[in-house]
Amino acid sequence: MSDVARAAGVSIAVVSYALNGRPGVSAATRERVLRIADEFGWRPNAAASSLRTGPRAAGLVLTREAGTGAHSTSFLDFASAVQEVVAERGFALLLQIVDSAEAAVATYRKWWAERRFDVMIVTDVLTQDPRVDALRRMRVPAAVLASPDVCQGLASVWLNEDEAYSRVGTYLVELGHREVAAVTASRALHRTRLRLEALTRVLDAVGGRLIHEATNATAEEAAATTRRLLTAPIPPSVIVLDSDQMAVAALNVARRLGLQVPWDLSIVAGSDSALCRLATPSITALPLPSRELGTAMGRAVLAVLDGQPEYSWVELAGGVAVRGSTAPRSR
Amino acid sequence: MSDVARAAGVSIAVVSYALNGRPGVSAATRERVLRIADEFGWRPNAAASSLRTGPRAAGLVLTREAGTGAHSTSFLDFASAVQEVVAERGFALLLQIVDSAEAAVATYRKWWAERRFDVMIVTDVLTQDPRVDALRRMRVPAAVLASPDVCQGLASVWLNEDEAYSRVGTYLVELGHREVAAVTASRALHRTRLRLEALTRVLDAVGGRLIHEATNATAEEAAATTRRLLTAPIPPSVIVLDSDQMAVAALNVARRLGLQVPWDLSIVAGSDSALCRLATPSITALPLPSRELGTAMGRAVLAVLDGQPEYSWVELAGGVAVRGSTAPRSR
Repeated sequence: MSDVARAAGVSIAVVSYALNGRPGVSAATRERVLRIADEFGWRPNAAASSLRTGPRAAGLVLTREAGTGAHSTSFLDFASAVQEVVAERGFALLLQIVDSAEAAVATYRKWWAERRFDVMIVTDVLTQDPRVDALRRMRVPAAVLASPDVCQGLASVWLNEDEAYSRVGTYLVELGHREVAAVTASRALHRTRLRLEALTRVLDAVGGRLIHEATNATAEEAAATTRRLLTAPIPPSVIVLDSDQMAVAALNVARRLGLQVPWDLSIVAGSDSALCRLATPSITALPLPSRELGTAMGRAVLAVLDGQPEYSWVELAGGVAVRGSTAPRSR
Repeated sequence: MSDVARAAGVSIAVVSYALNGRPGVSAATRERVLRIADEFGWRPNAAASSLRTGPRAAGLVLTREAGTGAHSTSFLDFASAVQEVVAERGFALLLQIVDSAEAAVATYRKWWAERRFDVMIVTDVLTQDPRVDALRRMRVPAAVLASPDVCQGLASVWLNEDEAYSRVGTYLVELGHREVAAVTASRALHRTRLRLEALTRVLDAVGGRLIHEATNATAEEAAATTRRLLTAPIPPSVIVLDSDQMAVAALNVARRLGLQVPWDLSIVAGSDSALCRLATPSITALPLPSRELGTAMGRAVLAVLDGQPEYSWVELAGGVAVRGSTAPRSR
């Protein structure tokens, strides 16, 4: 309380009044005290004592932004696996879908003050992510789906996409490709940056060129972008797309333009699924171990609860599943 | 307490001891008293008082069974829209994914005893559904995504799939088709039954025949089933599949068998998406208004909270989006 009083520039009595919801404090002051108290990790006592032995939850606040879990079937595999692990301790998943990372932070703050969750899970991490910052400052137990270098000491579960995309790049370069297009979700996503860096590194080494197009990660934008790339003066000989759905859309655009996949154009999907396997030709893809990542995240949540706030786990990315949509460069 | 004592065949003192977690009651008796108390709608006081003004949640327990929301991207649109509406009152979504409808009932019981949610949302309703029964018996506020006739007086939000599938059937019959195959999710799902009944009704009227194949609703099984149907002695001239992904899989199987869609085979998807629009040929589909259903469900949750337990809303299904995958019967 004295820390909060000092930070808020008020007396300890005012802090006590504000925290206990008693009259005699202005609404503005109460709001400010509660906000600062939240940052210090304060929790209402009544809720805390009733919840300590009772309801327990892992929080998960998805952003509705393009390319996030809120738009992908694999998210349900992930969430389902997380949930299976944490259910061992009677935990449920408290889910909210909000518009932005900033809105997610507001939800963390509110839920934490109300003691609605025990550990927060963060997915779809941005290169500059206010959520990781805020959770660390609020000292809220959390586990992040991202490499430790962007987790600021929070528990981390990640897929080494860097290595996976290096493998994709190397595979394409060995087939003779030098003009590679990457059609991705938002540039702001940390994983987009990792993927682009990996592809660029491999292409630079052989004097190749990466053409990058950021989209909202829908099949529609993937189709429109593919069309634009293929009708440009120097079209790429390969397009690597973030997801199975985007890759299927690209395959159809190529077909409509009269191009033969893989002879005129190679296509690679950044996540695998039945859609890739059943397409004609079937689509070369990177396996996305959503269930495994979910299980690892569930274990990370339990580790954080058990006093290992800096728990870290790397899920090894599988190799490229080579199928009919990729071939040596023909021109 | 006296009701519980009578039902459990114990004294009121024993009920009180059991409910308050005090010693002097055997584990078996405590368990039985808690179960019966749950059924009477009892809630632990401490949690109830802390939660009455604080944390509020709509519960949603998905079953992992084939063909449910736990496997579909449109579920996220639905959940996101529900959540947007209930967030107005500070509600979050408490999500659990379990193996069966029976396991869902166990979760309801546990969460309700712990007072973890205010209203339960039920989706993927079965023809014989233990969840609707249990919620009604426990007198738990609930809203069900199904037509009122299977909701036993619980609030209901539904899509008139019956009418939507009648329209699909009529459209196909008018094109001259008489041998129609429906490749669906589990027969146990209420919506599967509604769809089959609607198609059967229309086909019966013209002396046509419905061939039904139940699957686990994955693209893989849809592909295998399509192959089997198309290589049978009397293959259907149309296949109607439950989802966009299943329809795309069927389209690819037809292509690999050397069939020309729509001339040799017509294909209809029971839910629309970019995948259907971007396929070659594009796939005739029924729009699935997931967001609209989610919004309606959010409103139903608020209506239940506001004392309208029997609230009912029907979301009108849109007409068939006719595209390149359907044509008049050629043989």
